[in-house]
Amino acid sequence: MADPRVIPDPPFAWAEGAPYSQAVRVGDLVFTSGQGGFDADGELVEGIEAQLRLSLANLGASLEAAGASLATLVKITVYLADPAHLDVWRSVRADVLAPPFPATTAVSTALLFDGMLCEIDAVAVVG
Amino acid sequence: MADPRVIPDPPFAWAEGAPYSQAVRVGDLVFTSGQGGFDADGELVEGIEAQLRLSLANLGASLEAAGASLATLVKITVYLADPAHLDVWRSVRADVLAPPFPATTAVSTALLFDGMLCEIDAVAVVG
Amino acid sequence: MADPRVIPDPPFAWAEGAPYSQAVRVGDLVFTSGQGGFDADGELVEGIEAQLRLSLANLGASLEAAGASLATLVKITVYLADPAHLDVWRSVRADVLAPPFPATTAVSTALLFDGMLCEIDAVAVVG
Repeated sequence: MADPRVIPDPPFAWAEGAPYSQAVRVGDLVFTSGQGGFDADGELVEGIEAQLRLSLANLGASLEAAGASLATLVKITVYLADPAHLDVWRSVRADVLAPPFPATTAVSTALLFDGMLCEIDAVAVVG
Repeated sequence: MADPRVIPDPPFAWAEGAPYSQAVRVGDLVFTSGQGGFDADGELVEGIEAQLRLSLANLGASLEAAGASLATLVKITVYLADPAHLDVWRSVRADVLAPPFPATTAVSTALLFDGMLCEIDAVAVVG
Repeated sequence: MADPRVIPDPPFAWAEGAPYSQAVRVGDLVFTSGQGGFDADGELVEGIEAQLRLSLANLGASLEAAGASLATLVKITVYLADPAHLDVWRSVRADVLAPPFPATTAVSTALLFDGMLCEIDAVAVVG
C-alpha cells in the first residue's frame, strides 16, 4: 500500500537530514514538530518575544511546506520555559494570529536546548 | 475555498472574544483547548478534586458545542501541577468517564495561572 | 449511530481493565496513550536508554493492535524527566526509527510514577 503520509522538504537548511520531519500531512491534516526560535543558521535568537515570533514564523513555514498555514490552524500547543512569559505570549499571539483562532493549550515545561524559552507545535488543515 | 474548520460559539460567557477557540472541528474530529477548573464567572474553584471535575465538565461543554462529547473522546492529555495528585485524577476519572475509554497522556508541568492545578485537553469524534 | 471509535484489545496483560485505552482508532488515524518503560509484568526497567527503548516498543505494540505501527508514525511527543537525557533519546531514536520520520515534539516534565524517566505518545496512520 502506498504510504499515505506526505513529508514535505524541510523549509530550513539546518533541518535537512534531521531525524524528524518538520511537518507530516495525512489526509487533510498536518501535524508539525515543536518549533523554536531558531534562525536560518539554526541559532536561537535572544529574548522571549523574538523567540515566540520566530517560533510562529517557523511554524508557518513548516505548515506551508505541507499545504497548510498559520491561517488554517486547528490546534496549537505552547510550551513556555517560564510561566511568567504568558503575557508576552498573549501579546505576540494577538499580533500574529487572526480569527478564526485555533484551540490552544499552554503550559510551562523545561525545554531541551540551552537558552530555548518556548516551543510551539500545531495541527492544521490543508487549504 | 471555504474554510473547512467549524468554530462553535464559546460555551462560557467569559470565553467570548477570547483569542483562541474552546474547540475546533475539522471533518469528524474535534480538538479542544486546555480546560481548567474555571467556573461560570471565570474564577478558579478551590482544590484539585473540584478543579479536575470542573475541567472535565468544561471539556464536555466545549466538545458538545462542537458536536462531540465526553462520551466520544479519542485522546485526552492531562497536565497536573503536582504529580502527587495522580490518585485524585484516577478517582475523578473513574467517576466521570465511562468505557470505551480514551487514550490518555498524563504528565506534570507548571501551569500558567496562579492557583491552577490541572489542565486537560482532548481530541474527540463527532457523534 | 455506531461508535466510530475502534478500541483494540490491550496488548499488555497489565493493561487489561485499565480505565484508559492504549490506543484508539478513528478513521485512518490512531491516537495512543503515553507509553513508558514498563515490562510485561508492569514493572519499570532501569535507566533512560532501556526505558526509551521499551517505551518505543510498547508504543509499537499499542499501534499494531490498532492497525498502525512505528513505521506509520505521523507525530510523536516525548516527555523526558531529565532534559539532559536528550542525547540518549537522539541515539535511541536513530537506532529504532527509520525514514520517513514523524513530526516530533520533545520537552521535559515531571512524570507521574516513581522512577519513570520518559513517556512517549503518538499519532499514526493505519496501513
